[in-house]
Amino acid sequence: MNTIQYRPIGIIHTPYKIPAGTPIQPPASKGVEADIEVFKEYTEGLTDLGGFSHIYLIYHFHLSGKFSLRVKPFLDDEPHGLFATRAPSRPNAIGLSVVELIGTEENILRVKNIDVLDDTPLLDIKPYVPGFDNCQVHSIGWMEKKINNLAEARDDGRFAE
Amino acid sequence: MNTIQYRPIGIIHTPYKIPAGTPIQPPASKGVEADIEVFKEYTEGLTDLGGFSHIYLIYHFHLSGKFSLRVKPFLDDEPHGLFATRAPSRPNAIGLSVVELIGTEENILRVKNIDVLDDTPLLDIKPYVPGFDNCQVHSIGWMEKKINNLAEARDDGRFAE
Repeated sequence: MNTIQYRPIGIIHTPYKIPAGTPIQPPASKGVEADIEVFKEYTEGLTDLGGFSHIYLIYHFHLSGKFSLRVKPFLDDEPHGLFATRAPSRPNAIGLSVVELIGTEENILRVKNIDVLDDTPLLDIKPYVPGFDNCQVHSIGWMEKKINNLAEARDDGRFAE
Repeated sequence: MNTIQYRPIGIIHTPYKIPAGTPIQPPASKGVEADIEVFKEYTEGLTDLGGFSHIYLIYHFHLSGKFSLRVKPFLDDEPHGLFATRAPSRPNAIGLSVVELIGTEENILRVKNIDVLDDTPLLDIKPYVPGFDNCQVHSIGWMEKKINNLAEARDDGRFAE
């Protein structure tokens, strides 16, 4: 299998219009709301989603530039292997965020704690289930000493095209 | 943006050769190990990943068939909206699993608790960070009454091509 083709199932509408200044993870965007527009042909697939308080958004980092295998992530001044970071420029520029679902109306999902750029193409939605997704983590590598900077750290455009 | 093209960055090698009988989430595959083969040209991007105890695997459900917007998931006898399930047949057949990382050697990652089919194309790896990814969930919808079946539930091939 050489290439895999996906098509957006919707568009993420958020207050963040450009990379610079955008929060880098959902906990750094507490309370900020957004509308997830799922294309109408998929509306039926949203049935029962409203019962879940949190969902995964899987999306395409549409403004990310070429990847490097070593990057300086927003949280650190030292370079790290790309796959040990959540940097947006990746061989496959797939983004992943867990957000709180606060309302659904037909094909629109209202969510909270969004860290995604406006107009981002949405690829998939999955229910977030602690029994599947919450792990007893015992180490977070280089982030151990850096994660306290999360609230202040912001995208500065370094991975944009 | 009409289509998005990705290319596998590696292959997931697991003991699960066919859909039927495969555990449906990592906690249902406790202790089962697998080798993630990242293609050699990406080896440098794995630097520092070994410091993380858990990682996200993002992959393509290569054996999934056509999607329906309402599906009977493995955990229930009732149909639900596709996006309120983790069923593998989706408009974009993207799979997501959190696994425990137990070793790295050059371009091979050894992981535990794998729920993925053998030969699955790998799209991305991200470090799992509780500060980003663990949520205070207050509802899990239809799964509330069904999640106790997780250990026994198995794929039965219903979503395979």
